[in-house]
Amino acid sequence: MTDLSATTGVTDRPSGTAQQTGTTPDAIQQFLDRQRPETPCLVVDLAQVRNRYRQLRTALPDARICYAVKANPTPEVVGELVGLGASFDVASPGEIDLCLAKGAAPESISYGNTIKKRRDIARAHAQGVRLFATDSAADLANIAEVAPGAQVFCRVLVDNEGSRTPFGRKFGCLPETAVELLVRARDLGLDAFGVSFHIGSQQLEPTAWEHGIDAARRVFAGCAEHGLRLRMVNLGGGLPAAYTQSAPPLADYVRRIEESLDRHFGAERPELLVEPGRFVVGDAGVLRSEVVLVTDSCDGESRWVYLDIGRYNGLAETEGEAITYRLRTSRDGDPVGPVVLAGPTCDGDDVLYQRTRYELPRTLRGGDWVDLLSAGAYTASYSSVGFNGFAPLPTHCVDGDQQP
Amino acid sequence: MTDLSATTGVTDRPSGTAQQTGTTPDAIQQFLDRQRPETPCLVVDLAQVRNRYRQLRTALPDARICYAVKANPTPEVVGELVGLGASFDVASPGEIDLCLAKGAAPESISYGNTIKKRRDIARAHAQGVRLFATDSAADLANIAEVAPGAQVFCRVLVDNEGSRTPFGRKFGCLPETAVELLVRARDLGLDAFGVSFHIGSQQLEPTAWEHGIDAARRVFAGCAEHGLRLRMVNLGGGLPAAYTQSAPPLADYVRRIEESLDRHFGAERPELLVEPGRFVVGDAGVLRSEVVLVTDSCDGESRWVYLDIGRYNGLAETEGEAITYRLRTSRDGDPVGPVVLAGPTCDGDDVLYQRTRYELPRTLRGGDWVDLLSAGAYTASYSSVGFNGFAPLPTHCVDGDQQP
Repeated sequence: MTDLSATTGVTDRPSGTAQQTGTTPDAIQQFLDRQRPETPCLVVDLAQVRNRYRQLRTALPDARICYAVKANPTPEVVGELVGLGASFDVASPGEIDLCLAKGAAPESISYGNTIKKRRDIARAHAQGVRLFATDSAADLANIAEVAPGAQVFCRVLVDNEGSRTPFGRKFGCLPETAVELLVRARDLGLDAFGVSFHIGSQQLEPTAWEHGIDAARRVFAGCAEHGLRLRMVNLGGGLPAAYTQSAPPLADYVRRIEESLDRHFGAERPELLVEPGRFVVGDAGVLRSEVVLVTDSCDGESRWVYLDIGRYNGLAETEGEAITYRLRTSRDGDPVGPVVLAGPTCDGDDVLYQRTRYELPRTLRGGDWVDLLSAGAYTASYSSVGFNGFAPLPTHCVDGDQQP
Repeated sequence: MTDLSATTGVTDRPSGTAQQTGTTPDAIQQFLDRQRPETPCLVVDLAQVRNRYRQLRTALPDARICYAVKANPTPEVVGELVGLGASFDVASPGEIDLCLAKGAAPESISYGNTIKKRRDIARAHAQGVRLFATDSAADLANIAEVAPGAQVFCRVLVDNEGSRTPFGRKFGCLPETAVELLVRARDLGLDAFGVSFHIGSQQLEPTAWEHGIDAARRVFAGCAEHGLRLRMVNLGGGLPAAYTQSAPPLADYVRRIEESLDRHFGAERPELLVEPGRFVVGDAGVLRSEVVLVTDSCDGESRWVYLDIGRYNGLAETEGEAITYRLRTSRDGDPVGPVVLAGPTCDGDDVLYQRTRYELPRTLRGGDWVDLLSAGAYTASYSSVGFNGFAPLPTHCVDGDQQP
């Protein structure tokens, strides 16, 4: 995650992305109040997951929605989405096994990682997976050899400006290379299906997809010159969750995407695929932590609040302070003051927010709780197996539609 | 880990720290050749762990050696060190349980984390742990209440210049605050034992301990003015493993430390405690990975080598390219060229070395292996539970003294 310039966070400020969910808003709160689970823990409301999926289904009725399993691979979450008819974007054999175990059909799975072992491609193909991402000649050759006849889409590199967690240059090729690869795919007996791109996760600029849709159009045109008619554009992920920074509502994203599609494809509109992860599960989770200790810094100029959750047991996305969670505490309502927030390990880098301004109740002390809101995505699965001897972050699922 | 300026790494260049171990150097290699374990995996040679412990025992005969369990909590490693009479620096209840389970005496355990829940202090005390670090009034009050009569040492903040992984300002207080806290500790009925500091892990400058020993002397003097005679200086960790950058030999560190102790304490030499982690286990481990894919970058100007090990399944210390491992490949001897090294996940930040220059054989391809040398510390325990569906890094132990 990239180190962005300092931003300002405040306690529990509702972000512009907060969508009306229609489910009991406090199913998670009720669970926390009644069960008082050991901390730290993540609580996910499956009703909110369903609701988000349906919102997106309504907003993009023609798109195939592939849930990005990496965002939250909790089996109950995957199972809910199987039940709703979702497709799945997977990164590894482990994620394929998980989806199949939860009842997903192999044809609902898109192997979206461009970095795949040859034997993992063969294994996926043997399991019935038929759709693969690629962005290199070496990977394409492997797919052609061990997954004959499979569908492939080629990932192009696009500008990630506006993203809180941009991708750098690890994935994607130039549009002209994509044309070469897709033509070669056809010549190798594969189904050259389309183009994908990713404008960066937690993308706060709805116009960002324009870059990718324009690039996709150029790849479509280039392939057409070789007599190859592509049919699909994979819009990737990027739709936001509600952190401290305001994000536009879903409708704004959809409108801009539709405008770009009209501009570049007109009546020749391709099939669409989207890979939401954070958007589906981010706002559906609350991470409860306990205050370990509150101290004054050595210079007496700042107050440090140490939580039992940190960068190595769930909050990996606080690296570079990229993702700034909204907070709620057991002392809300008391007068607040600025704090530095840090995790519980002996690691000097296990500091959550030092440049981002957070204000928490001055009365906060060891034993109080602090909830990190919208923490359903990219938390528990990042957790270390036991760095410093701390256990991985457990996940509890509740269902706001099943409340009494 | 801090983002340092670009450095130059090369393949398998022996570093100045490489100590003669006296054990069969290739016990790990033999295991890898014979067993061909699934990759990625870490292989640790217990003979090299023993050897390193004994080197340090000889070099610092008067110091109490507390192995920093966080560096590698593999039960076999902890068990070996229990057998050698080591003490243990622990960060959490989990690490205390591990040490006790492997036969460590409670009085051999130092609870070195200054960030402790009150109930975890009580639990440790009930288990027989009697030595605690502190650096704040809040933590000290907890210790006094739930671990009455315990020994405490106070951590002071010192300059970390020269460290590849400096601590920032998360831990430690000013020397004058340490005096206040230690005097208060005495007044609360605790045994105010001494002072600790940490000059940063992988410290390449043997004179770095001077800062901390000088600070400790000032705390001793300040406490003496209150009629409190401290008895112990905890020199922390910082001794290096053999990565691509040269590090001085152990003797240089010991000589500089002894000089500082003589200068500041003279005949009033305190008891010493050291907390080596990386030095004990770093060079004892080899991490075997497999090449997933080799590609040309989108601009055709760089070659990317993707391994099945990355930042999220073991190589957390490549963050900011802080730790630069020496590499060995199955194609060594073939002509080399520059590469970017990256991990297997769909995360754009899962890139190991992009600014650090690494050169690997031009013949390298998917299915070949790449060994990361001196990877025994801060690898497996950092591994995520399953980010992107990849399993945590397993550890295999061998014993070079038990070879046929």
